[in-house]
Amino acid sequence: MKKHNFSAGPCILPQEVFQKSADAILDFNGIGLSLLEISHRSKDFVAVMDEARAIVKRLMKIGDDYEVLFLGGGASLQFCMVPFNLMKAEGGKAAYLDTGVWAAGAIKEGKKFGTVDIVGSSKEDNYSFIPKDYKVGAEYDYFHCTSNNTIYGTEMHKFPEVDTVMVCDMSSDIFSNARDYSKFDLMYAGAQKNMGPAGVTLVVVKKEILGKTGRDIPTILDYEKHIGKESMLNTPPVFPIYATLLTLQHLENNGGIEAAEQRNIQKAKLIYDEIDNNPLFEGFAKKEDRSFMNVSFKLLDESKKDEFDAAWKAAGISGLNGHRSLGGYRASMYNALPLESVQVLVDVMKSIK
Amino acid sequence: MKKHNFSAGPCILPQEVFQKSADAILDFNGIGLSLLEISHRSKDFVAVMDEARAIVKRLMKIGDDYEVLFLGGGASLQFCMVPFNLMKAEGGKAAYLDTGVWAAGAIKEGKKFGTVDIVGSSKEDNYSFIPKDYKVGAEYDYFHCTSNNTIYGTEMHKFPEVDTVMVCDMSSDIFSNARDYSKFDLMYAGAQKNMGPAGVTLVVVKKEILGKTGRDIPTILDYEKHIGKESMLNTPPVFPIYATLLTLQHLENNGGIEAAEQRNIQKAKLIYDEIDNNPLFEGFAKKEDRSFMNVSFKLLDESKKDEFDAAWKAAGISGLNGHRSLGGYRASMYNALPLESVQVLVDVMKSIK
Repeated sequence: MKKHNFSAGPCILPQEVFQKSADAILDFNGIGLSLLEISHRSKDFVAVMDEARAIVKRLMKIGDDYEVLFLGGGASLQFCMVPFNLMKAEGGKAAYLDTGVWAAGAIKEGKKFGTVDIVGSSKEDNYSFIPKDYKVGAEYDYFHCTSNNTIYGTEMHKFPEVDTVMVCDMSSDIFSNARDYSKFDLMYAGAQKNMGPAGVTLVVVKKEILGKTGRDIPTILDYEKHIGKESMLNTPPVFPIYATLLTLQHLENNGGIEAAEQRNIQKAKLIYDEIDNNPLFEGFAKKEDRSFMNVSFKLLDESKKDEFDAAWKAAGISGLNGHRSLGGYRASMYNALPLESVQVLVDVMKSIK
Repeated sequence: MKKHNFSAGPCILPQEVFQKSADAILDFNGIGLSLLEISHRSKDFVAVMDEARAIVKRLMKIGDDYEVLFLGGGASLQFCMVPFNLMKAEGGKAAYLDTGVWAAGAIKEGKKFGTVDIVGSSKEDNYSFIPKDYKVGAEYDYFHCTSNNTIYGTEMHKFPEVDTVMVCDMSSDIFSNARDYSKFDLMYAGAQKNMGPAGVTLVVVKKEILGKTGRDIPTILDYEKHIGKESMLNTPPVFPIYATLLTLQHLENNGGIEAAEQRNIQKAKLIYDEIDNNPLFEGFAKKEDRSFMNVSFKLLDESKKDEFDAAWKAAGISGLNGHRSLGGYRASMYNALPLESVQVLVDVMKSIK
């Protein structure tokens, strides 16, 4: 039976990425060796790293004032790397937007380095919307926000104008919509949503914002040190980077971010229309802040729960349970999820009477 | 033609690891989904993580006073995690042994956190031996050493008795010899030598040594936080951990560390005997400190270089060039390198007249 993988991440990737990356493990580029056993400094892998760094800039339409890094440690490591690299050692102060558990995680780490002002928060409403109408002045070393909140299914469709360095955790919606990426000074994202398998984190940073804090940064946490070694300061996560390159090549070969955005709009319309029109279901997030990636919703009639759960499982759907902190359901619809899978889910939703 | 991969890391792994990990990318455990697209919290992957943590303890013959973590970021991240977690915030002081470029890298990071005393160094002799006859008293928060030095081909065959916490970077010889692992309080190792592909770092730590520094440690750098979440504080590097488990299962199914050590002794004897008996070659490291993993040597008659290089390449050998900082040749013979490959190299060495 065909599988429909709505997992929140790690999540579905293009099928050709699975095939090509499995092939590379058996024989990489026809060299008679596995991708897993070659040196990261071999010409075959250096070419992978170079192309992975280049394709990110092409897809985002950003210039040479940006540097692209592929690092280990997860996006959570960026929660401390950002203040290490951007918050001044003396009198450091940053503005954060609190839109969910992960944003709050970034805030917690920021506070270990200096003053953190939370310029907006929807915590009291269980993060069901994106706060707006705040100002961020030049007195801050940077502003940090989270573009998409997987648990709640909210997404920033507009970004504020700020008078300081703009930092964004784009872990769960990077490469899914054609926002103006050149608006940001530092973007980071764990790979395991739209970009690749778990184990690598993308960092895109404007060089000009670095080196200004007066901190003695541990070498491995210093963006400038990674940039100086072209993202090979130490042995990089070879396989996750290769699978990420394959995923980004698939995106580029299928119309780039603009085309992906159109497909994502279509998928989102299909399921949100069903949620809004079917009296059995209710969306969680405020409509204007609804995410195109993660759709959190609940079944209003609990007596139908067993029937609904059995029906979607029977249809080949997996990964639909909501995050443990919110309950209900969550349909994660990253770039690689086909419209067909959303249609299957919507058909199941329609079938419950 | 059969390949003989002497790469210094990432390096050769058992052939069945390549086959099984490629299979898992196409269909993991027969569930109809790729290993790359399932949640790290799915029961299938939690079972991988649990078994990976358990097998490390079985192989090392260590008890439940140890915790096993699989982290991202590389062994270089441990250079700062170690002092963050072990060096006291006030008056912190640690002892380090300087046996090579990587040991020096750890020292550099340690100095950012407190006082570092270098209790022994072979730097002035280009790291050709392991310093001995030093004492490490209880006034130090910990002692840090590097068990094997890939570039120079030196290895610690004996470890000092110290009156403090014993920390060892075992990146390039872990699981290769039956040392008493219970002698150490904290061991760490990047996977990409004897353990698995690049992208994951093993940390084995005694819980009792943690939580004593008075530092406000960034969450993601805090061993106790990782332990509290059973190595799932954030999304772990799923594929590298799975391939690591396969490699360790292969080791366990082939007699464990003791049997691997016997095979490694055989391989080392074969090549060192040739180096010592063949007047064309000379080993780099002091004999008593020779590594069983990395054999650094030079060709004494430069006029034979083209002939030798052509001969080993024609024999299917790769990865034999020495590290750029030392020149010459380096034969890396990790667990997965068969004796047959060493024999092929020795035959080539004998063929040069």
